[in-house]
Amino acid sequence: MDYFKESLILHKSLRGKIRITPRLDVRTTDELALVYSPGVAAPCLEIAKDPHTVWDYTIKSNTVAIVSDGSAVLGLGNIGAHAAIPVMEGKALLFKRFARIDAFPICIDSQDTDKIVETVRLISPVFGGINLEDIAAPRSFEVEERLQDLGIPVFHDDQHGTAIVVLAALLNSAKVLGKKIEDLTVVINGAGAAGIAIAKLIKGVGHEESERRVCVKDVILCDTKGIIHKERKDLTGAKLEALEYSNGTNKHGGLKEALVNADAFIGVSIANLLDRNDIETMGTDPIILALANPIPEIMPDEAKAGGAAIVGTGRSDLPNQVNNVLGFPGIFRGALDAQAKRITPGMKLAAAYAIAEHLRNPTRDNIIPATLDESVAWRVADAVREAAMKENWENY
Amino acid sequence: MDYFKESLILHKSLRGKIRITPRLDVRTTDELALVYSPGVAAPCLEIAKDPHTVWDYTIKSNTVAIVSDGSAVLGLGNIGAHAAIPVMEGKALLFKRFARIDAFPICIDSQDTDKIVETVRLISPVFGGINLEDIAAPRSFEVEERLQDLGIPVFHDDQHGTAIVVLAALLNSAKVLGKKIEDLTVVINGAGAAGIAIAKLIKGVGHEESERRVCVKDVILCDTKGIIHKERKDLTGAKLEALEYSNGTNKHGGLKEALVNADAFIGVSIANLLDRNDIETMGTDPIILALANPIPEIMPDEAKAGGAAIVGTGRSDLPNQVNNVLGFPGIFRGALDAQAKRITPGMKLAAAYAIAEHLRNPTRDNIIPATLDESVAWRVADAVREAAMKENWENY
Repeated sequence: MDYFKESLILHKSLRGKIRITPRLDVRTTDELALVYSPGVAAPCLEIAKDPHTVWDYTIKSNTVAIVSDGSAVLGLGNIGAHAAIPVMEGKALLFKRFARIDAFPICIDSQDTDKIVETVRLISPVFGGINLEDIAAPRSFEVEERLQDLGIPVFHDDQHGTAIVVLAALLNSAKVLGKKIEDLTVVINGAGAAGIAIAKLIKGVGHEESERRVCVKDVILCDTKGIIHKERKDLTGAKLEALEYSNGTNKHGGLKEALVNADAFIGVSIANLLDRNDIETMGTDPIILALANPIPEIMPDEAKAGGAAIVGTGRSDLPNQVNNVLGFPGIFRGALDAQAKRITPGMKLAAAYAIAEHLRNPTRDNIIPATLDESVAWRVADAVREAAMKENWENY
Repeated sequence: MDYFKESLILHKSLRGKIRITPRLDVRTTDELALVYSPGVAAPCLEIAKDPHTVWDYTIKSNTVAIVSDGSAVLGLGNIGAHAAIPVMEGKALLFKRFARIDAFPICIDSQDTDKIVETVRLISPVFGGINLEDIAAPRSFEVEERLQDLGIPVFHDDQHGTAIVVLAALLNSAKVLGKKIEDLTVVINGAGAAGIAIAKLIKGVGHEESERRVCVKDVILCDTKGIIHKERKDLTGAKLEALEYSNGTNKHGGLKEALVNADAFIGVSIANLLDRNDIETMGTDPIILALANPIPEIMPDEAKAGGAAIVGTGRSDLPNQVNNVLGFPGIFRGALDAQAKRITPGMKLAAAYAIAEHLRNPTRDNIIPATLDESVAWRVADAVREAAMKENWENY
């Protein structure tokens, strides 16, 4: 199927992939009086009296905003708020499909950090959670960080959603190969939103207190200029901060140097970057998660020819598809059901383990559940909700 | 029925009166590839290339934001953004019910004019129209005015929606009584958002160029301090501006003095203000539109005892219910279908005439269509769309 051609036709015929629908009909004046004036005054006054009842009387308890400034949309780059809408609608559709969540696209016509932060703050009353989407790094880091006090979860899916699903794949890969997570040296190519978040999550950064903390032996981050190491003078922000938790042996060089003797490669970068010779330099039975979309950093056949034991990609037509859809619906479902104030490290780890453990018997060609497996989100939701509730109790 | 008690139970059991629903299911990886990655890139790229195609490929063409700061909600006053949500959800439900429009509540957690204006601007990409709702005057005037350049209609329903439906009622009342609109002296009690908008619309202010302009002989506006006249020193903003088009004979005194010899009374104020003696001082066969909710300024029986020829209220259990529901769904439907950039004076008049003319044979107890008459919105939509298209052509 020519996805591009067919998708254009589909989008034009639909003029919008989501709709707002009433949950009840209004056929009589009595019904009108109940849902609107004068009856609607009753829930309004209750909320005015006790603000927390907004969760009981309105859509808040099931509604998430999908917020983007259109600055880093899919692999398309900075196409702006209007052109980002089809992606956000698609995401809304998936929120409903997999977790019965009502999600609405908020595409912000500004790429100024202060304005994005303030807009999200101001429109937050109606939402129970904020999914930040396709906002370029480093702006996305700051936007997310500054909104953590909002009182509802603010979660940048390109960072943490990706990191959670990657961790699930890594956990099962290690299990299948009989390796210990804490012995792995992992090379990550791409030091944007996803790369940094993956590095932190698998290295246990910010998760020091978590019961089920994961911490690989070492993470080596590479960007377009090569390995991130202490002697580089061009590092700022999150990349500079990465020196604190990555590249423990202070390796120098490019991606190819980084790969020598490494146990795993995680690519969140660009197509066709590696060949079998690069894989051959890695340690025994290396794990390759080549997630560039739609064309991976290396194709599975090529990677296997170089000795890869397990290969995952972002593609649905190849084994081991690593797709955010396995994460965000269940994560938000669990957070909403717990009325969580934020997505904590414990909740992220709970989600990753839930995804991994959903497969009773992972194999080399089946390290992660199928993207369209409907039961995953509910399992993730349970785990996330329980983690949230537990942390809440502990805070009392 | 105890609307308040029943409404509270209903709202609690629903936890939100609207839902976001997908327009298509995602069961296969092909379907996922069409609605989301990678296929969704196709409409994104089209919009990036030609911004106007956002109307073709997204929900924009059918989606309206219902924007409130919660500062003047129903008769409840300034209850804030959270407590306003049930009303905005109810309004969304009515948009769908009567005009198939997808409307979503945006409740802004600030009552600062600049912040409201900026927020609406920033979130506008996904919307084809903005319905401002329950924002206190005079802030609502400024917010609306400053947003007229947004490129999509920004319409404060409490002002213009009310004015349009009132004008429809007045047109038919005059017709039934054999009076000419241009001979009427109309007293309006309440000089807030609704009162000012009604005064301007029926006095033809801003409509000087319109083909079907309406202009009563005189309008006398009263606020809590009495008639608005030239010698008052406390007037600012819209009330000061009202001196230019109202009270042509510079009457002084209170509401009771204003009513002497007047042909019509329009109340958008508070309950139980008048009795039969006040009506007796008015001209022959006066028209009374007592729209305070839920208790009118005067009850129909009392008004008729004082000589009123026609009485309308805001109540569904009395004849001649003057309700905004007759206006806003069709007005936005027509504007969206014309992809209008704003709601012009010509479009407002077209809407008022369409509502009035929907009744082939109005009578004293039937001056305005029934609130739940589903055909009204479509008639209004046609009239508004035609007016918009005509003005557009004339601008070429």
